[in-house]
Amino acid sequence: MQGTQETPPKPVSYTPTDRTVPTRSAQKASYYKDVVHAILDEGYVCHLGFVRDGAPVVLPTLYGRVGERLYVHGSTGSRPLRMTGEADPGLAVCLTVTHVDGLVLARSAFHHSINYRSVVVHGVAHEVTDSEERRLALDALVDQVVPGRSADSRPANKKELAATAVIRLDLDEVSAKIRTGGANDDPEDLALTHWAGVVPLRKGYDTPLDNADLAPGIEVPEYVAAL
Amino acid sequence: MQGTQETPPKPVSYTPTDRTVPTRSAQKASYYKDVVHAILDEGYVCHLGFVRDGAPVVLPTLYGRVGERLYVHGSTGSRPLRMTGEADPGLAVCLTVTHVDGLVLARSAFHHSINYRSVVVHGVAHEVTDSEERRLALDALVDQVVPGRSADSRPANKKELAATAVIRLDLDEVSAKIRTGGANDDPEDLALTHWAGVVPLRKGYDTPLDNADLAPGIEVPEYVAAL
Repeated sequence: MQGTQETPPKPVSYTPTDRTVPTRSAQKASYYKDVVHAILDEGYVCHLGFVRDGAPVVLPTLYGRVGERLYVHGSTGSRPLRMTGEADPGLAVCLTVTHVDGLVLARSAFHHSINYRSVVVHGVAHEVTDSEERRLALDALVDQVVPGRSADSRPANKKELAATAVIRLDLDEVSAKIRTGGANDDPEDLALTHWAGVVPLRKGYDTPLDNADLAPGIEVPEYVAAL
Repeated sequence: MQGTQETPPKPVSYTPTDRTVPTRSAQKASYYKDVVHAILDEGYVCHLGFVRDGAPVVLPTLYGRVGERLYVHGSTGSRPLRMTGEADPGLAVCLTVTHVDGLVLARSAFHHSINYRSVVVHGVAHEVTDSEERRLALDALVDQVVPGRSADSRPANKKELAATAVIRLDLDEVSAKIRTGGANDDPEDLALTHWAGVVPLRKGYDTPLDNADLAPGIEVPEYVAAL
């Protein structure tokens, strides 16, 4: 009976569903949690889709991740958050995060592509009402943009908390999609004289700019300079 | 009667609708065509939203602009494009393009934000069947990523054209949303000692990488080196 008392290893993959298995290029899909988490953690802007009056709406918004939960926040007056409150039990959403890594130039127009990493999360978003979870979520949203920043800013006060809605989307029906590498031209095109290759994209930060109303003597903190 | 024969000046703005007037921060919205076009022309990846079985789906995809028309392409087997063909008269979509320009760090967690420029297009996408419009659209899709590239690659052949669906979305119900500038802290927070300001984001290109199977002697073309 040795080992029967051991905790089974946590699942390392999300379970594929009809919605998360692509109809094309299935080899680009990944369901590994560490792959999905890494893509999510590298970003902070998602594109959140929901349905309003039968039509799709896609809005860019900030997000934060805490374990297997994603959080999105906004004014209690904004549309998706208002709809979450109205809609019981929640609002069907699709949350997508995309990083573009390179331009792929093939000899043939047809095989042009981009190298990218994306995560698509399907699910039902619920409004968060527990005050402790709301606090954790709001910290996560700030720290997703600048790690360490939530500890170095004034936390939300009662009035601000009352004006802020937080919604949660569990990481459950999730997939990543990744393209890497060079152009995949057809063999008969390899003799063409057009250049083929990849133009890598570079993302970075420029020198931080002090706010116009910053008091003298306040330096750029280390966690900002480190970006 | 002088001047009655003159062509009236073209409208320079899109007409706001219930869907394109934001419920919050209305001062960030713009309907000027030149503002919208400039944001669209700086990008090449959009997030395309559509409704499938009543639930939203948001997928990153390339787009191209020709005047007041946006084009998206894909395999005839891919979901949104298949749905466009099935759904008569078209597929309701929301196409969103977002550029993130900077991180806005306020003294208060509440006033943290990002500087961004986004365009949201609502409408009904239609499959393009006219062969000349399809050719223009496919060129625009390649040139949106690398200006000048469509003329320096092998055009799609019959087989590739048969495998490619092109859908069109007219720029009609459109808005831009723009945030610029520093952190807007409340007056009572200005004395706090937290640093406040903007961290500008920089996007760029790294040195182009030759494809592994590139024939010797083919140089990186000027329009790629110029990126």
